[in-house]
Amino acid sequence: MENPMYLNLLMTGNELMIGDITDSNSTFIAQQLEPEGFPVRRKLTVGDDLSLLIESLNDLSQDAGVLIVNGGLGPTVDDLTSAALAAALNVPLEQHPVALAHLESWCEQRRIRLNAANLKQALLPKGCFILANRTGSAVGFGAELNGCLVLCTPGVPREMHTMVREEILPLLAKRYPEQVRLPLSRFTTFGIGESGLQQWLSDNLPDLPDAIDVGFRASSPLIELKLKPKTLDALPLITQWLPRIEALISDYIIANEQTSLQKAVVNLLAAQEKTIVTAESCTGGLIASQITSIAGASAVFNAGFVTYSNTMKQTMLGVAKSTLQQYGAVSEAVVREMLQGALDRSGADLGVAVSGIAGPDGGSTEKPAGTVWIAWTSAGTIATAGLLFPGERLWFQNMVAAASLDLIRRELQGITTTPRYLIERRIKSAIK
Amino acid sequence: MENPMYLNLLMTGNELMIGDITDSNSTFIAQQLEPEGFPVRRKLTVGDDLSLLIESLNDLSQDAGVLIVNGGLGPTVDDLTSAALAAALNVPLEQHPVALAHLESWCEQRRIRLNAANLKQALLPKGCFILANRTGSAVGFGAELNGCLVLCTPGVPREMHTMVREEILPLLAKRYPEQVRLPLSRFTTFGIGESGLQQWLSDNLPDLPDAIDVGFRASSPLIELKLKPKTLDALPLITQWLPRIEALISDYIIANEQTSLQKAVVNLLAAQEKTIVTAESCTGGLIASQITSIAGASAVFNAGFVTYSNTMKQTMLGVAKSTLQQYGAVSEAVVREMLQGALDRSGADLGVAVSGIAGPDGGSTEKPAGTVWIAWTSAGTIATAGLLFPGERLWFQNMVAAASLDLIRRELQGITTTPRYLIERRIKSAIK
Repeated sequence: MENPMYLNLLMTGNELMIGDITDSNSTFIAQQLEPEGFPVRRKLTVGDDLSLLIESLNDLSQDAGVLIVNGGLGPTVDDLTSAALAAALNVPLEQHPVALAHLESWCEQRRIRLNAANLKQALLPKGCFILANRTGSAVGFGAELNGCLVLCTPGVPREMHTMVREEILPLLAKRYPEQVRLPLSRFTTFGIGESGLQQWLSDNLPDLPDAIDVGFRASSPLIELKLKPKTLDALPLITQWLPRIEALISDYIIANEQTSLQKAVVNLLAAQEKTIVTAESCTGGLIASQITSIAGASAVFNAGFVTYSNTMKQTMLGVAKSTLQQYGAVSEAVVREMLQGALDRSGADLGVAVSGIAGPDGGSTEKPAGTVWIAWTSAGTIATAGLLFPGERLWFQNMVAAASLDLIRRELQGITTTPRYLIERRIKSAIK
Repeated sequence: MENPMYLNLLMTGNELMIGDITDSNSTFIAQQLEPEGFPVRRKLTVGDDLSLLIESLNDLSQDAGVLIVNGGLGPTVDDLTSAALAAALNVPLEQHPVALAHLESWCEQRRIRLNAANLKQALLPKGCFILANRTGSAVGFGAELNGCLVLCTPGVPREMHTMVREEILPLLAKRYPEQVRLPLSRFTTFGIGESGLQQWLSDNLPDLPDAIDVGFRASSPLIELKLKPKTLDALPLITQWLPRIEALISDYIIANEQTSLQKAVVNLLAAQEKTIVTAESCTGGLIASQITSIAGASAVFNAGFVTYSNTMKQTMLGVAKSTLQQYGAVSEAVVREMLQGALDRSGADLGVAVSGIAGPDGGSTEKPAGTVWIAWTSAGTIATAGLLFPGERLWFQNMVAAASLDLIRRELQGITTTPRYLIERRIKSAIK
């Protein structure tokens, strides 16, 4: 028994080749099968081209125990999976009685006549077995090719999902009962870059055993750290090292699972029965919209002020005209007054205010595009920071929103150490 | 000169193999290169495995003129593209002066120290050429392998997008001037579904020649209609049929290019020197953040009110307590008062107000999750609509934001016909 047993994927369809759709089917298949001991080794995507499909079936059946083919089961002329597998197996196509019965009952239920195009869906490689399709007209099918188990599935996501859950997972569990699952530990982090995180781990834990697989996933603005034993023998090492890694980076860990900053903040606010208010200039409502994207946000969020112009900073939030004139809209004094105004008007427990230059225009030598001032509630008072995020407008806005939410997260978690980004990105005029 | 010249893609990264992320990079690359005469023949996705990468580079360079490699340029140990290409080329890795200079200036701009991990990003296959990365630390690079032009690009979508547009497309245009680019005409539409659009075309233009390739690309909430001659001979047919197609669906066309609703609206407002205000409940700042994501938004947008609670609808926008009590927060009367309050307080020329039930909780039999009322300025007065978008929370919020922006777009373009979605999605209680 190979362990793990490798899985290859063959995704088919012209629409995948010209960028008309993004393939999320392979994402689903990998998510379902990898934890069961069937990691994906190679995934090949090709268009509706018979000879390329035959060549690909032969190639991909060489270095994996299981090959899942997705797409090309439909009734039209460009659906070629059945013909390609028959050719690769060197067997004829023949009408499969189970497939035909499924088609007949499927059409009958919908009171539609079985036409010639539909009938093509019952023409399968001689000797193949059937994978039932509970939600669509085309059955799946399987056969052994070059010692590899080939399973053909429909391209319609809903039909494929059902087939993987109800047919393929039980089939594989029965056929390969010895496959084992290696536990994966995740930490979602913010505030330390991928290279910074790796450097820190190797500086502080130089003895981290090779048998622990360390992976990073950048999902801007977050970095996910993933730890997995390379083999079953390394399981005790994970138990031993996990707490040391967690302790080392605890300030940057948002959660021990896949999450977002907004979800972490909304959950913390809800658990502590606190509310938050936002006062946004350069992010233009992004922070409020991230908070309210989370179900249940209404328990922790009542109001957001998007004050893009100086006049609206005065009328909506009570920022003094003199403050704006003396310091400019992007200044410590202005974000402080914005936050105070938002807290007064909403009665929220916590808040964050931001004013910056999103660019590409509007910057100056003294305050270049990418400059931002953030004010947030901290230990019963207002803290501020002047930071520089030089980059594209959307990236700047996302980084400012993420830093704002992270500062609130740290406040809610009682973390008092200064995060790296407040030091590394501090603007010169803010260094005292 | 091969025509078309085939392109292969090699997408790398363990995160792609275990279903942690869905690969939209290859979608982007195909969308950009296929219309330029470089259709994708095979796309292979593999994890961070050096020998598999080397084998894949050799394989994929055999049957294509160009091979784009994506991912694996980062600073960590699992970033292996440079080492794999050097091995495939049978050349050593060496520090590339241009890559090093880029890294140094990149770190200097961000006031971060160049660490050992970063330095790895300057170790490239001897003799390769550089593809500049304007938005990230890792430069791209290229070399010829088995007569195929191999181009290595970063996995971070933003960085890859810029590199494809600014480096790769000009490089290919210069290197392969003979590639035939069949002109692609695009219409970005909103308010009519893919099958609805297809049906409408075939009902109204039954004689549309086969030599015109009609494609649809759903990019929620927009649908892109693409028209392309199948061969150069069909070019005159495009000239002849394009105006008829455009006239047929003109109300739904946001632009004759790839765009977003927010960009179209900001451009129209700027051209007409008008300003807009937003008053949002269920979308929680999403409409404001979409508007302010566009560079230059400050010329057309001064303020947004995010009034999530009933109390804040009263204090921030002056909605009457009695209106809230009599009709509920999700009602025609409330969005009308929200919009009037926002217009009064901001002095904006146009505005939109929304209040709805994003779900999954908060719905009732009378007003289920997915219900929304929208008010918008129309011909000098306030128009309203009660609509139903039943679905996931984020989908609901995005559809409400899109409909709101589209109603403003129609107002700015002087379109007076009622869009389909106002009829098809109208809630029962709103039918008079």
